[in-house]
Amino acid sequence: MKKFKRSARLVEMTQYLMSKPHTLIPLTTFADRYGAAKSSISEDLAIIKEVCESEGTGELLTLAGAAGGVKYIPKYALEQAKPVIEALCAQMGHPDRMLPGGYFYITDMLGQPSLMNDIGRMFASVFSNHDIDVVMTVETKGIPIAYATAAYLNLPVVLVRRDHVVTEGSAVSINYVSGSQKSLHTMTLARRALKERSRVLIVDDFMRAGGTINGMIELLREFDATVAGVGVLVESEDVSQDERLLHEYVSLMRVKTEAVDPRTKQLNVALGNFFDKSGK
Amino acid sequence: MKKFKRSARLVEMTQYLMSKPHTLIPLTTFADRYGAAKSSISEDLAIIKEVCESEGTGELLTLAGAAGGVKYIPKYALEQAKPVIEALCAQMGHPDRMLPGGYFYITDMLGQPSLMNDIGRMFASVFSNHDIDVVMTVETKGIPIAYATAAYLNLPVVLVRRDHVVTEGSAVSINYVSGSQKSLHTMTLARRALKERSRVLIVDDFMRAGGTINGMIELLREFDATVAGVGVLVESEDVSQDERLLHEYVSLMRVKTEAVDPRTKQLNVALGNFFDKSGK
Repeated sequence: MKKFKRSARLVEMTQYLMSKPHTLIPLTTFADRYGAAKSSISEDLAIIKEVCESEGTGELLTLAGAAGGVKYIPKYALEQAKPVIEALCAQMGHPDRMLPGGYFYITDMLGQPSLMNDIGRMFASVFSNHDIDVVMTVETKGIPIAYATAAYLNLPVVLVRRDHVVTEGSAVSINYVSGSQKSLHTMTLARRALKERSRVLIVDDFMRAGGTINGMIELLREFDATVAGVGVLVESEDVSQDERLLHEYVSLMRVKTEAVDPRTKQLNVALGNFFDKSGK
Repeated sequence: MKKFKRSARLVEMTQYLMSKPHTLIPLTTFADRYGAAKSSISEDLAIIKEVCESEGTGELLTLAGAAGGVKYIPKYALEQAKPVIEALCAQMGHPDRMLPGGYFYITDMLGQPSLMNDIGRMFASVFSNHDIDVVMTVETKGIPIAYATAAYLNLPVVLVRRDHVVTEGSAVSINYVSGSQKSLHTMTLARRALKERSRVLIVDDFMRAGGTINGMIELLREFDATVAGVGVLVESEDVSQDERLLHEYVSLMRVKTEAVDPRTKQLNVALGNFFDKSGK
């Protein structure tokens, strides 16, 4: 057992807590780890809690009793999320990003792991109080967002495939119609990938009418599982309310390709409903 | 400007440094942030440095001079990596994982973001001194490993696709022969996804003869880019040295399907060369 000074202990405890989000850690774990009295550990935790809460980086939940301990809940303060997403909106607005069919080139954004971590932390923050067993996405572009979200929530990721994959054993496939293009697609999930009655947070990079996400919801029914929430990085407003297949979701950005300024060719990209829902 | 006590400052600085790996942070940033003298900041950094180094969680590089500052380099101590990978080897050894054609079901492992972060941190640790511009993988299973590695190295991710994707604009495609099965495949990379003369760390989940990774290396040539390193989670030893297309790589696990114990049906899964290369 190493002996730590308080200052070193605070550094190490902070690292330890940050590396184990949404995990109940008994006070005795820290007491044993640092060879310190529980009362000292409690004082340290009070300091960490105060910093996390005043900086908006997280909450430190203390659970009393024999099965008690402390749990670090990563958060993303709205006033800190806003400039990050505003900068992203400005990047998104560039006319070079428009592709045929109402799609956007956002691969460069999705290729920035630190940005994906920011986005995942935002979703983890807004869904932190939901009862969720697993984070789901469909390949390929939603994957980094799903992993970042799931890492902060300490949950596994389930990946829906476009085709049946030989290395995943027996699988369930469904056909679904994309809402905006009315074309038929397939998605597949390995039988052993999802437990029955799981509560699932669905995450994706882009949503227009919501056909793909609706497909995932349909797939969940095959596993007797339910949706616990939906989070999308970008929602397109190029669909009418009638065409929209999904109404309950959290978006970080909204884009409307129709509203292109003819002079600057700048797209109209705005903050998503995340900034309404999270309150204030 | 907020005023922080030393204890609170240590907690906040630790969080700040951990969230910005491989990023040079000028001391004035901290001095301004906490309303503290540079000498106090230096003392704090010395405490954080000592904890990181004694716990094996990272290095804190201090660069002197006008352009100086501090840089946090995440590390994974070998003695801490070993039990994590040994536990993984035990999981891998289960006969249920064997699939036709010498493949393995490891989707459940790849679906654990905290494990992916561990693995990414191990690769980031061993490649921390290499001169790398970008981390590359091919869809789909290598993606979480690539993002975790790149996040700890503070680098972007470039994703090679199996097919041409409409939302990524013009692209370069190559055909390659998988070394073990002698079958022909295609891989594609968007023109704007990779800058010329980039130094690339290639990461993947599974390697047999190395045909897929060799394909990526061939693709790099089209972009005038070079390989800075190769990291794989699992290497299969079911290929002879002659069949192997690649000899310079870091693996975390080695599996040999031929060496199955006929009674227990346990596969022979051993630690990879990571545990030789990292020394000690």
